[in-house]
Amino acid sequence: MPSYKAPVQDTLFLLNDVFHYQNYGNLPGFAEASMDVVEAVLEEAAKISEEILQPINHSGDLEGCTRNADATVTTPAGFKQAYKAFKDGGWVGISAPAEFGGQGLPYVLGSAVMEYCASANMAFTMYPGLSQGATAALLQHGNEAQKALFAPKMVSGDWTGTMNLTEPHCGTDLGLLKTKAVPNGDGSYAITGQKIFISAGEHDMAENIIHLVLARIEGAPQGTKGISLFLVPKFHVNADGSLGARNAVSCGSIEHKMGIHANSTCVMNYDGATGTLLGAQNKGLNAMFVMMNEARLGVAIQGLSLSEVAYQNAAAYAKDRLQGRSISGAKEPGKVADPILVHPDVRRTLLSIRAFNEAARAFIIWTALKADVVHHSTDEKARQAAEDHLGLMTPILKGCLTDIGFDNCVKAQQMFGGHGYIGEWGMEQFVRDARIAMIYEGANGIQALDLVGRKLGLNGGRAVTTFFGEVAAFIKENQTDEAMKPYLAGLQSGVGHLQQATMWLMQNGLAKPDNAGAASHDYMHMFGLVAFGLMWGKIAKAALARKAADASQAHSMDAKLMTGKFFFERMMPETGAHLVRISTGADTMMAMTADMF
Amino acid sequence: MPSYKAPVQDTLFLLNDVFHYQNYGNLPGFAEASMDVVEAVLEEAAKISEEILQPINHSGDLEGCTRNADATVTTPAGFKQAYKAFKDGGWVGISAPAEFGGQGLPYVLGSAVMEYCASANMAFTMYPGLSQGATAALLQHGNEAQKALFAPKMVSGDWTGTMNLTEPHCGTDLGLLKTKAVPNGDGSYAITGQKIFISAGEHDMAENIIHLVLARIEGAPQGTKGISLFLVPKFHVNADGSLGARNAVSCGSIEHKMGIHANSTCVMNYDGATGTLLGAQNKGLNAMFVMMNEARLGVAIQGLSLSEVAYQNAAAYAKDRLQGRSISGAKEPGKVADPILVHPDVRRTLLSIRAFNEAARAFIIWTALKADVVHHSTDEKARQAAEDHLGLMTPILKGCLTDIGFDNCVKAQQMFGGHGYIGEWGMEQFVRDARIAMIYEGANGIQALDLVGRKLGLNGGRAVTTFFGEVAAFIKENQTDEAMKPYLAGLQSGVGHLQQATMWLMQNGLAKPDNAGAASHDYMHMFGLVAFGLMWGKIAKAALARKAADASQAHSMDAKLMTGKFFFERMMPETGAHLVRISTGADTMMAMTADMF
Repeated sequence: MPSYKAPVQDTLFLLNDVFHYQNYGNLPGFAEASMDVVEAVLEEAAKISEEILQPINHSGDLEGCTRNADATVTTPAGFKQAYKAFKDGGWVGISAPAEFGGQGLPYVLGSAVMEYCASANMAFTMYPGLSQGATAALLQHGNEAQKALFAPKMVSGDWTGTMNLTEPHCGTDLGLLKTKAVPNGDGSYAITGQKIFISAGEHDMAENIIHLVLARIEGAPQGTKGISLFLVPKFHVNADGSLGARNAVSCGSIEHKMGIHANSTCVMNYDGATGTLLGAQNKGLNAMFVMMNEARLGVAIQGLSLSEVAYQNAAAYAKDRLQGRSISGAKEPGKVADPILVHPDVRRTLLSIRAFNEAARAFIIWTALKADVVHHSTDEKARQAAEDHLGLMTPILKGCLTDIGFDNCVKAQQMFGGHGYIGEWGMEQFVRDARIAMIYEGANGIQALDLVGRKLGLNGGRAVTTFFGEVAAFIKENQTDEAMKPYLAGLQSGVGHLQQATMWLMQNGLAKPDNAGAASHDYMHMFGLVAFGLMWGKIAKAALARKAADASQAHSMDAKLMTGKFFFERMMPETGAHLVRISTGADTMMAMTADMF
Repeated sequence: MPSYKAPVQDTLFLLNDVFHYQNYGNLPGFAEASMDVVEAVLEEAAKISEEILQPINHSGDLEGCTRNADATVTTPAGFKQAYKAFKDGGWVGISAPAEFGGQGLPYVLGSAVMEYCASANMAFTMYPGLSQGATAALLQHGNEAQKALFAPKMVSGDWTGTMNLTEPHCGTDLGLLKTKAVPNGDGSYAITGQKIFISAGEHDMAENIIHLVLARIEGAPQGTKGISLFLVPKFHVNADGSLGARNAVSCGSIEHKMGIHANSTCVMNYDGATGTLLGAQNKGLNAMFVMMNEARLGVAIQGLSLSEVAYQNAAAYAKDRLQGRSISGAKEPGKVADPILVHPDVRRTLLSIRAFNEAARAFIIWTALKADVVHHSTDEKARQAAEDHLGLMTPILKGCLTDIGFDNCVKAQQMFGGHGYIGEWGMEQFVRDARIAMIYEGANGIQALDLVGRKLGLNGGRAVTTFFGEVAAFIKENQTDEAMKPYLAGLQSGVGHLQQATMWLMQNGLAKPDNAGAASHDYMHMFGLVAFGLMWGKIAKAALARKAADASQAHSMDAKLMTGKFFFERMMPETGAHLVRISTGADTMMAMTADMF
């Protein structure tokens, strides 16, 4: 059975030493969350992850969710109790505004908590995770009455929320959706249609479920211009907040999925269910996209979460499993065999996971801090720069962290040999669970297209120019530091390739958009590598400083410094291959006729 | 539900046009298997794959195998009947010698049949597949009495066979095995111990199961030098071939696996079971390795098989699924949306799978023909060259085809968006099934180590030198052909990188073996790419010739020529990144202490 230990010290190191958390003290929420408080919150989050959520992860996968004859859904044993503990601990509203009962803590802290929880039990974390997204949309687009009636219960976790976008014939292309809304004459609408793949669509853990549903008002334009967002509660809510009768929305079936079995992914049937408009008519997609950006960061975190827990278990196994001897001579002659950690290829595998995990965690914290600036800063320039960063980095984070997170689970599983393929060891569940993150909230191909087709050119390329400036400044700032040389050289090489690729896209992608599409996957991953490289540069700098200041930490800082060196030796060089591929353009692939495939 | 169509025309093109099958007419078996016969056999294999095996693939996964209270195992609905049809068609003994009732057809033909069957139903194919491996070991190491008693029934498929190597504490390192054999005094042995991960260990499809079991004779040396191979039948076999009583071997449980649910992977308990020695005392590992080399090629084929069926379904879906519009303007303005095949990134994904599939199929056929030469040729020089090729290429085929085959299933699944994650569409089963091929018959890390640690340097590097010579000769032979230029340039670049890496290994791997271990994974994949490149060179040459000879085939040959171009543009460039990684050596990863992981 797998185990998990939340990397609290690593999160604290990143917040403190790498990103200078204390500099954000002037933002709302940060003043109340001093580093002492942050540490205490993280320790508590570690506890609930390790002691409450992780122990029901494997059993939840085995048992799955059950749809009963009356269309209710029973979650796996222990989930209801775990949710109660999670809710009572105030974790659902950790970053929600205090006026609705939230803790008002920085988003960056919420994102670290989310990482731990998803490492421990990804399927569980989706219930409150979806709820947080729905609450964000409600707070941003709801009217005062809607907010007053629904937000406090959703922030407390008494009620949960969902997002209903996909229909059988449309996922990415929401303009095709058919679910319709007919005015009831009293300001409400009757919603009719079928939604699929609805995470946490029906369950037994909360008193009510608030569905946010995309639908087309009768007579509205075709395509994306005619889509509105509706709030449809499972149980009607009376004006005093008490629950009324059951609404005409129900779970038709639970999808048979590859993984995340403990999350009830539902087919939801709307049979004239009563809903109220959330935001303006025909502006539903805009409202939904607010939710989706937050959700995409959340999914990126899941990629890191599973990579982290898979790494921990693979590293432990590699130290424990005795099999064969080191090719450079027995390392444990007193034992029947050496632990497999003696083998270079085992170390290469583990380090490639670890070098990603630490950089990805830094990338998330860096970006989550920008989200806090966007939400709270009164400095318009800082706010805009942070928004640029979020827009540019969200597709990169979602695409790269989930692609690589999945690959890393596969690599970690491989360390176990045949045992990795057997359910009891838990590694194959990580692979199956991690797989969905590459698909939902916009499949990764869509993320790549969003990056090259939209985000890159926005405002004359302002965001990407800023990023290149930031990398250049970091290199310049540290180039006289001898100890930083190995890191800066790799970063310089990677960013050079990325700049060449960006130039190529500007010259070849605008005139011929297929060139941009053909480059998108490679460009996204190349960008991710360079961002990881900047993270490793920053981590190395902070590790060198801490090592110099405190000899007792030299050993743990050396581990970081060597892992970073590994990153630049073995992972960053991929940017060169990406550049070559991008530069070949789209001609060959577009020349093929459909029947040739 | 997925579908499958065996690529018979592609196999014939490779045999005929690329590898000049007719040149092998002097080998036993080939004369009787003229191209007409080959085509008829392949058409029949296509039929049984498409009509008998594929329809029970998804249902078999859902139902799985059941261990009954009496330790018997029931296979999923339809498997018993399918096995009878398979057996009655003579497919089990397709390449087995006629003297034992086999069809004596070339191994290359058997390998193509295996490809189709595993595409249709990998879990099913493992039952006869393991049997073929066990039969090969029996024929090579058994004494006359053993062969006469067991081989005909195994070749006919009335009885099946298994391989019993792994124990809970040892997989790769068989020297640690504990199963013991005690002489009964009558020439037989009493075998006692537990084996795990035994594919097809117990089932209801055959009258008897012949287990080949590694065990240590009481008093034999520790380590690999004291291991013997035993033949242990499920039912004792009387001297007249009739079945006697049940032997003391039984299935303790069925493993709970990630995939291949329809194959009964068993924990096998030997409680003083009676067995006879197969081959010489303490030479069991040698005997087993004969089986394992054949088995490794079989596993490599599974990688191709799943990549092929996953591709077929993804390509069909990409033509069918209407979603969004081409970024270069609507391609099907009369429909609600364009098929997703209009998107460059979808084409990039599909072509990267296809460019692998066609090259991998060629690589298999090329190598299977060498196996036929090894088995049958009387020309000692040709036989030795073929044996060199097999030794060198087996780990590359096993490692690369299963790693990439799995990745390709993941890519094909991604084409389906959310539907790819749902069981009903069948794509997630391909991913789960393909995953095991990277692990069994020697995890891919072991294949990579076998390549750099053993095969590369064997006989002064004779095999690899021959390969480099072959590539150089191919380039030289075709360099005046203008149409071949794009293919030759890419091949030249790839083989240049591979030669540099080989040189680096010679200079740095011998003195410091950890450098070889650290390079092994990259070197194996780099070698695979160059071998694929040679295959694409040969395919392009044959396609150009056929196109020139027959205008009606220009369209289908153009598809190959463009896919090959894609390979050199987008896949071969990875050799550059592999070289950079390899050249960084092992120092960083070996410097880390165990507690740092």
